[in-house]
Amino acid sequence: MSRLAGGRYGKAEVRVVRVGRAAAPGGGDVLRDWTVSTSLSGDISASYLTGDNENVLPTDSQKNAAFAFAQRLGAVEPEAYALELARFFVDSQPPITRARVAVDEHGWDRVGTRAHSFTRNATLTRRTVVVHDETAGTSVISGVADLVVLNTTGSEFWGFPRDEYTTLPETKDRMLATEVSATWRYRSLDVDWGSAFTAARDALLEAFATTYSYALQQTLFAMAEAVLAAVPASCEVRLRLPNKHHFLVDLAPFGQPNDDEVYFAADRPYGLIEGTVLADDAPAAGLAWE
Amino acid sequence: MSRLAGGRYGKAEVRVVRVGRAAAPGGGDVLRDWTVSTSLSGDISASYLTGDNENVLPTDSQKNAAFAFAQRLGAVEPEAYALELARFFVDSQPPITRARVAVDEHGWDRVGTRAHSFTRNATLTRRTVVVHDETAGTSVISGVADLVVLNTTGSEFWGFPRDEYTTLPETKDRMLATEVSATWRYRSLDVDWGSAFTAARDALLEAFATTYSYALQQTLFAMAEAVLAAVPASCEVRLRLPNKHHFLVDLAPFGQPNDDEVYFAADRPYGLIEGTVLADDAPAAGLAWE
Amino acid sequence: MSRLAGGRYGKAEVRVVRVGRAAAPGGGDVLRDWTVSTSLSGDISASYLTGDNENVLPTDSQKNAAFAFAQRLGAVEPEAYALELARFFVDSQPPITRARVAVDEHGWDRVGTRAHSFTRNATLTRRTVVVHDETAGTSVISGVADLVVLNTTGSEFWGFPRDEYTTLPETKDRMLATEVSATWRYRSLDVDWGSAFTAARDALLEAFATTYSYALQQTLFAMAEAVLAAVPASCEVRLRLPNKHHFLVDLAPFGQPNDDEVYFAADRPYGLIEGTVLADDAPAAGLAWE
Amino acid sequence: MSRLAGGRYGKAEVRVVRVGRAAAPGGGDVLRDWTVSTSLSGDISASYLTGDNENVLPTDSQKNAAFAFAQRLGAVEPEAYALELARFFVDSQPPITRARVAVDEHGWDRVGTRAHSFTRNATLTRRTVVVHDETAGTSVISGVADLVVLNTTGSEFWGFPRDEYTTLPETKDRMLATEVSATWRYRSLDVDWGSAFTAARDALLEAFATTYSYALQQTLFAMAEAVLAAVPASCEVRLRLPNKHHFLVDLAPFGQPNDDEVYFAADRPYGLIEGTVLADDAPAAGLAWE
Repeated sequence: MSRLAGGRYGKAEVRVVRVGRAAAPGGGDVLRDWTVSTSLSGDISASYLTGDNENVLPTDSQKNAAFAFAQRLGAVEPEAYALELARFFVDSQPPITRARVAVDEHGWDRVGTRAHSFTRNATLTRRTVVVHDETAGTSVISGVADLVVLNTTGSEFWGFPRDEYTTLPETKDRMLATEVSATWRYRSLDVDWGSAFTAARDALLEAFATTYSYALQQTLFAMAEAVLAAVPASCEVRLRLPNKHHFLVDLAPFGQPNDDEVYFAADRPYGLIEGTVLADDAPAAGLAWE
Repeated sequence: MSRLAGGRYGKAEVRVVRVGRAAAPGGGDVLRDWTVSTSLSGDISASYLTGDNENVLPTDSQKNAAFAFAQRLGAVEPEAYALELARFFVDSQPPITRARVAVDEHGWDRVGTRAHSFTRNATLTRRTVVVHDETAGTSVISGVADLVVLNTTGSEFWGFPRDEYTTLPETKDRMLATEVSATWRYRSLDVDWGSAFTAARDALLEAFATTYSYALQQTLFAMAEAVLAAVPASCEVRLRLPNKHHFLVDLAPFGQPNDDEVYFAADRPYGLIEGTVLADDAPAAGLAWE
Repeated sequence: MSRLAGGRYGKAEVRVVRVGRAAAPGGGDVLRDWTVSTSLSGDISASYLTGDNENVLPTDSQKNAAFAFAQRLGAVEPEAYALELARFFVDSQPPITRARVAVDEHGWDRVGTRAHSFTRNATLTRRTVVVHDETAGTSVISGVADLVVLNTTGSEFWGFPRDEYTTLPETKDRMLATEVSATWRYRSLDVDWGSAFTAARDALLEAFATTYSYALQQTLFAMAEAVLAAVPASCEVRLRLPNKHHFLVDLAPFGQPNDDEVYFAADRPYGLIEGTVLADDAPAAGLAWE
Repeated sequence: MSRLAGGRYGKAEVRVVRVGRAAAPGGGDVLRDWTVSTSLSGDISASYLTGDNENVLPTDSQKNAAFAFAQRLGAVEPEAYALELARFFVDSQPPITRARVAVDEHGWDRVGTRAHSFTRNATLTRRTVVVHDETAGTSVISGVADLVVLNTTGSEFWGFPRDEYTTLPETKDRMLATEVSATWRYRSLDVDWGSAFTAARDALLEAFATTYSYALQQTLFAMAEAVLAAVPASCEVRLRLPNKHHFLVDLAPFGQPNDDEVYFAADRPYGLIEGTVLADDAPAAGLAWE
């Protein structure tokens, strides 16, 4: 015999674009370009067991609400939007006791001082995930993804153990590149989301650039601590850093030097370093990472 | 103050291809085409805190071991390979107390009866994740991904609640399509991995095809139960089913009928249904899903 | 001063799915899953020069026609569909003198003998491009893409020139893998499109598998000739074959042999071999490859 | 009977990263991040017909040369690099009469004023293709790809013909977004490549932002003319502009207004507008676009 041990359902990747007409400081438009995913859970097991949809608010309705809330709330920060949307589902649908709303924000830059023209800024993706649970309360995590950074020097790697499969030479100078996926958990809901995001992003960049690195792990920890320091409202940081290997090309067979000038950028495989850093006084995470 | 609350590191996406020369029944070659990712944890905090790599077996060594074990073990099932590789890291590196080895297997079909020629079979990706922990023991999960299936009829959706954002009409006949991501946990390590995989895959397909569906949730549960029934060695099934919407195109403006014949296959957004089904006598999951 | 030297416009990647209910031999459903792109040209320069759209049939209308023709024509071969749709645009819009219709067909297999259930067969993508021009006439090219094939032996590479940048050793036995993009041009419009496609695909596979290869170029030529031989209605074949390198892994540092058993499948860079083979009596290509 | 009507071969997507140490104005590093593809043709038919590789410089050697030239030339503009590399192949290999070298340059920004730290700037990809032919001479085309731009207003679409499949309403105000692929051909090889690229890119952006648009075709022509005007060394511009549809969401069923504020960003299908604009005094293109 078996049983349903967990379930949730929703609409994924709703492409919501919200223009705040003349809403920018100085009068130009604001552009919020979001990929929104909603997911509901609660008393929904009948749909799994018998196909009874009495408690299943259609995912199409969730999509409609995602658009309607974007209109009603204005071109707000994604965290503020996700909070309102998550609460709406739980408050308005009695069988639904938990909602998860995830927003990926795609960046745009104004073209010079023009009010209405934009170019896509793909430097990073801004992310947030709100979980609102009737019993466990509400959590907000935010983060960045797709942020690729590189130091041309200031990185070593040596002193590691050598087993029978170890052929890697030690190095006192290497290129270090990674694609930052960072997520931080907030202590409360009383946060200036935009400023906090900017501070966290800047702290990540600054820590990556200024940490003299003996291991990507060390850089990871420094980046996480920098976020905690720059954003007092944050209490936990999770980082996932692929080591995007840049191998120095051996030009000696062609009689040429290569004084840390020419590299082969490898695709796969890549190192992958993960870590979680927690403030000593962090409240329990609850459902934040579900 | 803050602290490292969790960390692991390894080599991701090592592209290992193992030919079993004349190893097939009847004498042709066997081709194992794998993307292997290894990840180690244990007494590694010094690398995060100070860049001391004394306990950090290089990810490059992990990659070398991934290739070396493929040679030594032969063209075996991916679960058998992952088990050996995970145990090796923990057994040979005292500071390492846990290893996670994930293998994606990409399918190939022999061209007719030819011994040495293959075509890529991209119908699905076979997956396995082994976690071997010095204390918590060893777990194996296996699964399929990228398996796209479709029923041209035999699916309804009605009887759902309607809120102020609900405009979806009820339907007594719709096309149902999804891309199956399914993972099942094994009760033990004493399993005929190849047969179990085939039985699980066939059960998923058969349950999808034969379940008259009032909700994709219902289809999901039926598919999970079918795996548990077909593979007694499995005790838990997790499914993630995107509802790949196919919308009937309204041809009335052009004076044409559309009797369930012409559909628009939408990309985004899509419904997303998730569920976990557990055998009543399932042992605790431990670290299997980490 | 400058001038418009060429222009065309249309709707790209319309996702048309056509079910032929009970249309298969034996009674099950037929599934045509297409990505359709239309492109029109003719007397359309005003839209470029002044934004005058008098002659610009909207791309939205082209999309609607793509769906409507799928209904009207039934679950026909993609070449037959593309021909009708291309003629329609030119015949019905006087300023439009040329239409190009491209169809990518995504494969599906019936699940066993079930009438209504399918699994996606991603072994290859079937392609066709029809160009219909009021003056130059009508051409049909068809092809395959995404077809990945591999020989575990039967390939050598030696006897090449060596310059100052050459370090590659000669080899008398290597693995040979490629992702076939092949396109063939038909001599006429009086063709059994389905049979011709099957014959061409089978000829490509057979030639790849049976050609003992001293260069991927040689395999390419053999594959092209095989299509011309198998499909008398074809008169020109274009092939694009990436050399998907599989490098033998050096396991000697670990004291292990590697008798052509363990390979690293590289992503980038890759060799890329292109070629066009023409029947001696091929009619002029006209606009077929535009 | 059939014959080889065309062939070329080379190495595709070599990932070359060149650091110019302290080479930036002011002393920081310069980072050239390139994906380089080389392709050779000439007296190479024997490799296709019989597998005789006597004239086939290995693609591996081409790759090595790509790295070696990056070292020797320094962190130069991609056009300068491609010219040198193309000439080398033709000059050094008598059977090779033509070389095509394509470079995609991936952007990086310095982190503040730091000398060694960079973030990936994915706003656009810079491209160049050099064709050097023993007989036909040398051509350079350059361009941008992946540049996504959007105007929140200033675009209309009306006055188009209506056929039986036309349901699209006319609009006097719509959002206009596209992903710019632009390529321009140079008249000569005596060009300041860096300045020309910047001028062309700025002209594209400015023309997109300032053209009041009655058709994306009109915007395309304006963008092309702007490049010709801003870069006197250019003589031909080719543009490919997908119309990335943003559909105004109908919120009326929910009792909400939508005054050009909330849009659904569609993936597929999309309009696709192509055009070529030629200076009246443009020299013949020769092999530039091969």
